[in-house]
Amino acid sequence: MSRGHNFSAGPAALPETVLRQAQAELLEWGGSAASVMEVSHRGKEFMAMAAQAEADLRELLAIPANYKVLFLQGGATQQFAQIPMNLARPDQRVDYVVTGDWGEKAVREAGSLAQVHVAANSAGNRHTAIPPRAEWDLDPASAYVHYTPNETIRGVEFFDIPDVGDVPLIADMSSTILSRPIDVSRFGLIYAGAQKNIGPSGIVVVIVREDLLQRCPKSLPKIFSFAEHAAQDSLLNTPNTFGWYLAGLIFKWLKAEGGLAAMELRNRRKAETLYACIDESGFYANPVEKSARSWMNVPFTLPRPELDELFLQESKAAGLLALKGHKLVGGMRASIYNAVTQQSVDALVEFMRDFARRRG
Amino acid sequence: MSRGHNFSAGPAALPETVLRQAQAELLEWGGSAASVMEVSHRGKEFMAMAAQAEADLRELLAIPANYKVLFLQGGATQQFAQIPMNLARPDQRVDYVVTGDWGEKAVREAGSLAQVHVAANSAGNRHTAIPPRAEWDLDPASAYVHYTPNETIRGVEFFDIPDVGDVPLIADMSSTILSRPIDVSRFGLIYAGAQKNIGPSGIVVVIVREDLLQRCPKSLPKIFSFAEHAAQDSLLNTPNTFGWYLAGLIFKWLKAEGGLAAMELRNRRKAETLYACIDESGFYANPVEKSARSWMNVPFTLPRPELDELFLQESKAAGLLALKGHKLVGGMRASIYNAVTQQSVDALVEFMRDFARRRG
Repeated sequence: MSRGHNFSAGPAALPETVLRQAQAELLEWGGSAASVMEVSHRGKEFMAMAAQAEADLRELLAIPANYKVLFLQGGATQQFAQIPMNLARPDQRVDYVVTGDWGEKAVREAGSLAQVHVAANSAGNRHTAIPPRAEWDLDPASAYVHYTPNETIRGVEFFDIPDVGDVPLIADMSSTILSRPIDVSRFGLIYAGAQKNIGPSGIVVVIVREDLLQRCPKSLPKIFSFAEHAAQDSLLNTPNTFGWYLAGLIFKWLKAEGGLAAMELRNRRKAETLYACIDESGFYANPVEKSARSWMNVPFTLPRPELDELFLQESKAAGLLALKGHKLVGGMRASIYNAVTQQSVDALVEFMRDFARRRG
Repeated sequence: MSRGHNFSAGPAALPETVLRQAQAELLEWGGSAASVMEVSHRGKEFMAMAAQAEADLRELLAIPANYKVLFLQGGATQQFAQIPMNLARPDQRVDYVVTGDWGEKAVREAGSLAQVHVAANSAGNRHTAIPPRAEWDLDPASAYVHYTPNETIRGVEFFDIPDVGDVPLIADMSSTILSRPIDVSRFGLIYAGAQKNIGPSGIVVVIVREDLLQRCPKSLPKIFSFAEHAAQDSLLNTPNTFGWYLAGLIFKWLKAEGGLAAMELRNRRKAETLYACIDESGFYANPVEKSARSWMNVPFTLPRPELDELFLQESKAAGLLALKGHKLVGGMRASIYNAVTQQSVDALVEFMRDFARRRG
């Protein structure tokens, strides 16, 4: 047995050096004489680690001082509800730009909590392109504009931050955060489930502009209130301590690897390698408009669906893991997050070329 | 360095054999060629593990077939809100029996979600005894009765399940679940944050009688609905996969150790050892009425507060960890959950006797 090339969409590949460190100190963490899983979240060892993780994330993303960073539970899906609960009144309009299945889910979960308006939706072209900004039906009085910079299932990504004026822009960055530098100051709130580029599942990072915390209703149960979590440095209740710890190791790894500028170069090259293989093959196909092709999630189809099972069997035998596409779209998908190396992408491309030669 | 005797209230000690197994397979889990943290929660390896964990928990607690078992996020604190959201209408009375600080928090979080009525409260005696059942002011029309079988901070525990008639009984068992056999059929819903007797933090187990799921409002965001989570086997969104895995290892360990009957014998003996030391010392004191003394959390005070810091320093030097009492009550607290061995309790008692001799 040895570790495969892991293209899972999430929970996804983690850097092997991070896993090795976690393994080495799993029974005795730092000077605590216990596992990091066995110490109080209110003890000074854990709190120092947690604060360092936040500081490293702030440095990586150049998060301005007027933003709070929260480490919460419930994943991005819970944020679909928590965001309108905190930032909109039930009678207030909120605008959603939908470019895929996660955007659709965000709309559904918010449905009973605010007056949800779909300002644009790429469903008409099966989410293969991004609706032009000029066609978005936004209202300057809306509580916020929500969008999904990268759609994990169909592999559609924004490469510019849309200008929505003074209305706070909210982004579900679950599958793109930390893949390259971004200008956080353009956003009212950014959130991201950890299980792609941050760490293991069970933790979600929320980056929120401080002035928006004034909107959080006092009547909310504290556990749902961004303002309460911010006031207590995400220690309102027991957090996912192991997830926070592992995220902290990932942030240190990212810094050691050269930060997000280095990630951008790597991720661009990995994506270019894979899309070039698809486009040049005359065998594989990706339906997304080139300007909106995701760097993180690359879905592709084979020319005949009966080849799918064979492709999956042979790729797995070659140590290429988790290439099956999402059930909503079928085909294949390679997720190539930060922890997936160029070497893994090269191995995939080599296999794909060989498979096409043999089955084309 | 070596592992200490860990008396943390939670996140708490885990069995060393479980940690060693997790460590050994941290980079390659089963036949997956990846860490358990790196595989899809919808893949067959993970789903088989998750189903086995549930089956083992069902066997350990003898959970009847008409109960659903959910593995969720957000801890017991989120359940303080989710329970009224799911099981009561906003205009409906819900009864709370308060025997400590966690019960108080449950009342506060439910406050805006239903008509909360405190049916009994031991605050008058500083939560050192359980109000007699005959004095509880219950309403047969209430949506449920909520109580906290074990209060972690002040160490007050119920040793009988209260009879509340046909009203569903709801129990926050975070710090007592799996410490001994219980009759699940007496409850409408049991919930427990994992970080004491189940596993690492970041996961909460909910055991709910199926008929109660009909109460879950269709208007709830799915992520908050017990009915939706039950219908999707807790895979409505990405769960805390590592936490679920580790809980599964704990359940296997419990079975191998003889199940909950064996735990009951061990836990009774550990508690008796520690309370006997306190009572016989003429130095340490525990204020809780003997019939309500917790088997899991043993708070105690020293005769002079100026000894506290010395006790903490010396005990830590002796490898006895996390004995500082909760800030609300001060003094000391030893949490002696399933993973804390008799040997650790014996080491603590030996230290306490020696300290009393030297400082008495």
